[in-house]
Amino acid sequence: MKTITSKPICKINSAGGVTTPAGYRAGGVHCGIRRKKLDLGWLISDTPATAAAVYTTNQFQAPPLKVTKESIFTAHKIQGVLVNSGVANACTGEKGLQDAYEMRSQFAQTAGIAPEHAAVASTGVIGVPLPVEKISQGLTAFYDEENEGTNRFEKAILTTDTCEKTASVELVIDGKTVTIGGAAKGSGMIDPNMATMLAFLTTDAEVAWESLQNALKEAIDRTFNMITVDGDSSTNDMVLLMANGHAGNHTLHEGHPQWAEFCEALQTLCESLAKSIAKDGEGATKLIEVSVTGAESDAGAKRIGKAIISSNLVKTAVFGSDPNWGRIVCAIGYSNEPVIPEKVDVFLGPVPVVAQGLPLPFDEGAAKEYLNNDTISIHAHLGQGEGEAKAWGCDLTYDYVKINASYRT
Amino acid sequence: MKTITSKPICKINSAGGVTTPAGYRAGGVHCGIRRKKLDLGWLISDTPATAAAVYTTNQFQAPPLKVTKESIFTAHKIQGVLVNSGVANACTGEKGLQDAYEMRSQFAQTAGIAPEHAAVASTGVIGVPLPVEKISQGLTAFYDEENEGTNRFEKAILTTDTCEKTASVELVIDGKTVTIGGAAKGSGMIDPNMATMLAFLTTDAEVAWESLQNALKEAIDRTFNMITVDGDSSTNDMVLLMANGHAGNHTLHEGHPQWAEFCEALQTLCESLAKSIAKDGEGATKLIEVSVTGAESDAGAKRIGKAIISSNLVKTAVFGSDPNWGRIVCAIGYSNEPVIPEKVDVFLGPVPVVAQGLPLPFDEGAAKEYLNNDTISIHAHLGQGEGEAKAWGCDLTYDYVKINASYRT
Repeated sequence: MKTITSKPICKINSAGGVTTPAGYRAGGVHCGIRRKKLDLGWLISDTPATAAAVYTTNQFQAPPLKVTKESIFTAHKIQGVLVNSGVANACTGEKGLQDAYEMRSQFAQTAGIAPEHAAVASTGVIGVPLPVEKISQGLTAFYDEENEGTNRFEKAILTTDTCEKTASVELVIDGKTVTIGGAAKGSGMIDPNMATMLAFLTTDAEVAWESLQNALKEAIDRTFNMITVDGDSSTNDMVLLMANGHAGNHTLHEGHPQWAEFCEALQTLCESLAKSIAKDGEGATKLIEVSVTGAESDAGAKRIGKAIISSNLVKTAVFGSDPNWGRIVCAIGYSNEPVIPEKVDVFLGPVPVVAQGLPLPFDEGAAKEYLNNDTISIHAHLGQGEGEAKAWGCDLTYDYVKINASYRT
Repeated sequence: MKTITSKPICKINSAGGVTTPAGYRAGGVHCGIRRKKLDLGWLISDTPATAAAVYTTNQFQAPPLKVTKESIFTAHKIQGVLVNSGVANACTGEKGLQDAYEMRSQFAQTAGIAPEHAAVASTGVIGVPLPVEKISQGLTAFYDEENEGTNRFEKAILTTDTCEKTASVELVIDGKTVTIGGAAKGSGMIDPNMATMLAFLTTDAEVAWESLQNALKEAIDRTFNMITVDGDSSTNDMVLLMANGHAGNHTLHEGHPQWAEFCEALQTLCESLAKSIAKDGEGATKLIEVSVTGAESDAGAKRIGKAIISSNLVKTAVFGSDPNWGRIVCAIGYSNEPVIPEKVDVFLGPVPVVAQGLPLPFDEGAAKEYLNNDTISIHAHLGQGEGEAKAWGCDLTYDYVKINASYRT
């Protein structure tokens, strides 16, 4: 599976989520960290699940990530995840680490699982101590039926997101139905500081640990790592994947005949969640999908795709429905990837605007009309090799500036 | 001269410009490429001047840069420069290269200088053929006294700039007064495409060619290469430095006892011009100066400074006068430079906001008041080594989005 196939082997079920796979339950409460919204969510597997995770590369990595990493390292198993929104518990030093351990142990005790099988995550304000008492208070409601429900979990992990981000996919492995579900939140700002990109993925497949980690890493490299809202990667970003084996398939690993299918299904789900994050970027009115083909390598195509999707000039042009091919060509030119200008073609959706590095006469009206859609595709073909990549982002709007400049005023 | 000294050996003369050094004259006309504004400017030295230049690294490098590069390569001398604004002659293929050669030869003939002593530059719309006839027409007015004047040259090179950017410095070398002058234009957009950062520097010093090139390269690395308006580097960027030797000093080179003084003076001038470009960034209301100290290396400090100054979140926070230290810390954290969070201090102007990686209680009001100034300094001290750098940029505002999204609508 070299790149994201255009015809995935499985369909996205946008009604699905983290509890669509067998053996998972979820819930959430309002524990008082945020003013009104749900701010504490949990996700539980009936049995300890093989767990893989990928963490932010930001060097100011938040304490909850350190604690979750330790849990997974101990036995490669996670049975429960507790997530709070409103406070990120980042830049909180030694005290923050103790608080994250306290959050984990209180959750483990309440849920009746081993501490090393418990994961924690936080998202919200940086530099503010974690209100552990409020979390303890919230946990007392853990067994109230009214607090059960996937949707409550999906809501509890959000910050400035305007909607829940959830989906599932299904495929048949060894004659058994295997389901993968997920819930994510976007990277938006919370006054006064960085929030987070979080995704929690669940599957009832039985998967070998190392293979699970490899599959997650590859899926993330092609999906969550290829979205840009404003290029700022947070202190708390994490994607966690649990596999509890309830589907009854033979253990999946690189040697399993259907391994590629599972990886593709996982990637299809991750792409769907990643796109919904990009589309819900702060102030965004349009989802931008950049496709780069004909690059010297996939890695090169990724860097060029990232250069285009990260360009404020491209993002503002899309907002203004301005068929501004020059800004796209320019971004390709400064991406530091070797390109041959005379070989570059650029398309705005169906409209070819550059061929062999030279501008084409095109119908400005048709191009502007295309750019009024809420999903905009930009395709750059470099004519050098087989390297391909996709990247997703959103337009740069007045509301982005408003949300991030005058939120407090 | 490891870094920009806070006390330069020479004062900036903001009334000075490219003709302040001895033996230069300049002028400009309106030749009809732009609607009304001056759009064709020339700069002439009485005698062929030793010339150094640095060109954009964008791989879609425009034809005029190729032609100028060839001129300098031939004899390391330039006597005249012709610059047009309105059309960039970029992405114009083989025809564009012929047009640039034609522009050079017509200018050389008119000015009575050797073609290989002539340089050309263009800035404006990408992908539009150079209107050579209009340039020829403009050149017929080359000897009209009314078209003489530095200010006409300074105006003729501008695009979306809101003001001329010019300055000079003076120092004494070998008992002779040596002057360095310059004029620059900013990197703003012109509908429909990328414009350019151009700077033309002149000095009456006598300087050995290789040394001149080294001095220019080092000055640019610390000044023009450390400004960011929106991070998009153009197809036409160029800085050209001419040294005609009229001052009568002994030839300057690395072995000359006052070499460091000349380099520092050149860097002081470049810093002044670079800051005026950043301050005049599209929609900008504030100049942001980022200082990074205590990094492992100068190169590392540069990358961290660039990460901070390029962050849309930092830029919008400054626009909103929001003392948002978390966004600064976050940018440091994802700069890919090794940092030790527990050692990082951050200052917003005079206000310390982070010490040893932890937030400090600070007076919000005082911080907000500081952020209402039109020049904002952000200082990050990493506590790891001796590496230092400065970077300059501007805030991200509604007007930036307006100029770049709805210019045509």
